[in-house]
Amino acid sequence: MSSKYLITGINGFVGRYFVEYLDEKESDAKIYGIDIAKNCDMDIQYKSLNLMDAESINKVIKSYKPDYIIHLAAMSSVAQSWEEPLNCFVNNMSAFLNLADSVRKNNLKTRILSVGSSEEYGTYNEPLKESLGLHPKNPYSVARVSQEYMSKLYVDKFGLDIVMTRSFNHIGPRQNPKFVIPSFVEQLVNIASGKSENKMMVGNIDVIRDFTDVRDVVDAYYRIIKNAPNRSVYNVCSGRGVKLRDIIDKTAKKLNIKPNIVVDPSRVRSNEVLSVIGDNSKLKKELGWKPKYKLEQTISDMVDFLKTR
Amino acid sequence: MSSKYLITGINGFVGRYFVEYLDEKESDAKIYGIDIAKNCDMDIQYKSLNLMDAESINKVIKSYKPDYIIHLAAMSSVAQSWEEPLNCFVNNMSAFLNLADSVRKNNLKTRILSVGSSEEYGTYNEPLKESLGLHPKNPYSVARVSQEYMSKLYVDKFGLDIVMTRSFNHIGPRQNPKFVIPSFVEQLVNIASGKSENKMMVGNIDVIRDFTDVRDVVDAYYRIIKNAPNRSVYNVCSGRGVKLRDIIDKTAKKLNIKPNIVVDPSRVRSNEVLSVIGDNSKLKKELGWKPKYKLEQTISDMVDFLKTR
Repeated sequence: MSSKYLITGINGFVGRYFVEYLDEKESDAKIYGIDIAKNCDMDIQYKSLNLMDAESINKVIKSYKPDYIIHLAAMSSVAQSWEEPLNCFVNNMSAFLNLADSVRKNNLKTRILSVGSSEEYGTYNEPLKESLGLHPKNPYSVARVSQEYMSKLYVDKFGLDIVMTRSFNHIGPRQNPKFVIPSFVEQLVNIASGKSENKMMVGNIDVIRDFTDVRDVVDAYYRIIKNAPNRSVYNVCSGRGVKLRDIIDKTAKKLNIKPNIVVDPSRVRSNEVLSVIGDNSKLKKELGWKPKYKLEQTISDMVDFLKTR
Repeated sequence: MSSKYLITGINGFVGRYFVEYLDEKESDAKIYGIDIAKNCDMDIQYKSLNLMDAESINKVIKSYKPDYIIHLAAMSSVAQSWEEPLNCFVNNMSAFLNLADSVRKNNLKTRILSVGSSEEYGTYNEPLKESLGLHPKNPYSVARVSQEYMSKLYVDKFGLDIVMTRSFNHIGPRQNPKFVIPSFVEQLVNIASGKSENKMMVGNIDVIRDFTDVRDVVDAYYRIIKNAPNRSVYNVCSGRGVKLRDIIDKTAKKLNIKPNIVVDPSRVRSNEVLSVIGDNSKLKKELGWKPKYKLEQTISDMVDFLKTR
């Protein structure tokens, strides 16, 4: 019998890739997408829904009875979480609890994927392993830590089936240029095409981050939802640190340009963590995951996407 | 110049004792109390207020400009937090953030006392020290851990002045008999007076807890708010574990009765932690605190209060 997936935030960056992954991997999968947006252009069952609305969520879950809930929707901007800490809490926590409570009240066997963040760790001078303590440094990550705690409590107390991630930066074609890497690639593509003058605005590009191609991320999520033990938590990361400067260099090389790089002080964040690198050995060892996309491939695909857009 | 105190939840068990403590210790202190209750019978400035109401809180803080906020109001029932986890989060978090944001927006130097709970620790087989990791086991304690994280973030990011506690069980005269110890004492007083038959209903009375007299608790809170370094966290506890059974014995001895103890299965909680004992050496060493009330004295005062009520 085919599996039924309920995907929240389906119109987002990861949601679309998850749908494409399922189309390929499990073509008989049934997909029900929900999102705050009015419409969805994918060929799936869709409902526009606010995840704060417990009653509407419950109606969907009660009638659809998903085997899996892939909970991708979130208020995930660190900057916004400083502007509206309470909203960040209430939105993230109520979206998650509304889903979990509905599964619980309807006595379903649904497995839930609760997505967390590398931000939960806070600052360490070593690769981030799942066993390290959590020291959240902004309201967004406090909300994520709370969501992880609550996930574990719902497993222990109510016997729910919940698997969790701490996801690091992901990149790929179609990502919104409000994020740093697509913003760089877009600027460079515009310089190469002559659409913009040769002046590239950046913040601190010597910081090191751990980037995973979004197509590898959805592969990890699929393996976790299918095979991870209940209540487990996995880093989703490449295990490799990359300087933002190196991504600019690789992109420029591919485009065959020499960009004029200008530091825009408004883009330099105070107290920015210099290096964030994850340890992905648990995900590799336990679930056989391995990233398929090299950084050069991801950048090349992002460039191609932006060129033809 | 006399200090200005804003006390939230002033009508509660701890609030009243804090006011009495100030009357004695700092008789020129100015006190502004807020509470959800309509009226307050104490001789202070009072406003009935819902702490969810950011605008009303801000009005009070903006005009009163407190030197200290003693934030005692909370939705602090573990059982209720399982019934309404989202409400527990939203209420506790928005009460705290509404206060902190108002101090921040008005650029006040106000010091805030953020009260947390021994429940933040979770289960350990050793006395609970402040340096141990936090493993909250119910939604209430997840909310308390979040409040502690947010307190630290507000100090680091906005320069606020916040001191924190992890408070263990406190007991004393006037405590609501929905709590275990006053319920025991009330039952025993009623048996001794002949008001009830000799049948005392209990849950698991072999569990060990760390009880501090509420009058010692407010002394600790006063020392913390006056002398603790910004961003510090203190256990508030006696450092001594007591079996509930021993408290029954001591109370019965004082009343000169031999109670007939009956276990009521509805009062026995599943998964109850067998022993919770705190380490108070930080509070003692750094702030010179020492509990003044021996357990016998506290019980005696509780008995006297209930006898003359």
